[in-house]
Amino acid sequence: MNAAQIFATKPTKGEETRAQILAAAVQIASQLGFESLTIGTLAEKTGMSKSGLFAHFGSKLELQVAALDEAARQFTEAVFMPALKAPRGLRRLKALLENWLDWPQRQKLPGGCPIDSASREYDHRPGPMRDAIIERQRLLERECTKAVQLAIETGEFARDTDAAQVAFEFLSIVLAFFRSEIVHGHELAAKRARSAFARLVETYRA
Amino acid sequence: MNAAQIFATKPTKGEETRAQILAAAVQIASQLGFESLTIGTLAEKTGMSKSGLFAHFGSKLELQVAALDEAARQFTEAVFMPALKAPRGLRRLKALLENWLDWPQRQKLPGGCPIDSASREYDHRPGPMRDAIIERQRLLERECTKAVQLAIETGEFARDTDAAQVAFEFLSIVLAFFRSEIVHGHELAAKRARSAFARLVETYRA
Repeated sequence: MNAAQIFATKPTKGEETRAQILAAAVQIASQLGFESLTIGTLAEKTGMSKSGLFAHFGSKLELQVAALDEAARQFTEAVFMPALKAPRGLRRLKALLENWLDWPQRQKLPGGCPIDSASREYDHRPGPMRDAIIERQRLLERECTKAVQLAIETGEFARDTDAAQVAFEFLSIVLAFFRSEIVHGHELAAKRARSAFARLVETYRA
Repeated sequence: MNAAQIFATKPTKGEETRAQILAAAVQIASQLGFESLTIGTLAEKTGMSKSGLFAHFGSKLELQVAALDEAARQFTEAVFMPALKAPRGLRRLKALLENWLDWPQRQKLPGGCPIDSASREYDHRPGPMRDAIIERQRLLERECTKAVQLAIETGEFARDTDAAQVAFEFLSIVLAFFRSEIVHGHELAAKRARSAFARLVETYRA
């Protein structure tokens, strides 16, 4: 038994139930959007009683914010964490792209990226969900900019590269991919995304 | 009086009313999404009775599809039509980009591009709205690809340029712009979009 095992606290029954509920909530949000995520739709999907769900989430809004947090956790785990295994620089950026393109499938989210969906829903609706999404968007940009910065530090990208600009263009490829995938299917959309990424790398290369 | 004036049919009162209702519907859809566009919310916004609105649109779905058509009409009029005044080739592509970046403002759509919003809502919800949006997306790609094709024909883009690939990348800039605008405001987002466009032009230039 190692130290991590000794100190790891076993999740309580309540924590386990909450995790299961949130997983179901992310599924609903992915397919129908966060506005359709209510205590009612969640009760239907999980088979739990509304009052039982109210014990975990006091309101629709609280549930939506918790589901967004859970989606972001899943995204980080599926896209960013595995990319850290790739060496910093271009190989990590490429890993990030590849993980991103198929994470909804790997995560069994039939409705596509739930964070993309959330940002589309709340972009122009002031309130706690919009605030949470803008915060997520900032974090995402910061992490992408960092990944680009590392490719400058490894000497793969030119020294005078504007990392935030490259991050904008990197994100643009992912957004266009998700849009194109609906119309043309995964293969062609992924081919176009990879080709756009190759051009991105080529023009900023040192 | 010229021929166009003689043959132009004056809109009937019913057509005028319908146009006013649809303008209000696009406003609602832009800000709250198409799912929030119901006979009820529309009655509130226009001050018309629900039964009066039912006379124009038999159902929520019929209303949503009509509002999407109207949004597409406004988009074509604000983005594509004026770009036709620019000479074919790179100057027209650039005009397209510029018109696109500020058309929600010019059109007084405080909630941003309603078609972008619709595609976000229905991407993964099978039904008539999703079908209509995929059809719009195809048309949009076709028109953008044509505009790129013209820049190949003028000799501005290299002869072996993959026009559909460039159209994908052109659309990616617009999508990233709308996302970035929410976080960073119009000026910085437009600066990044223009810079991405300049790189696009530079790498495909003949």
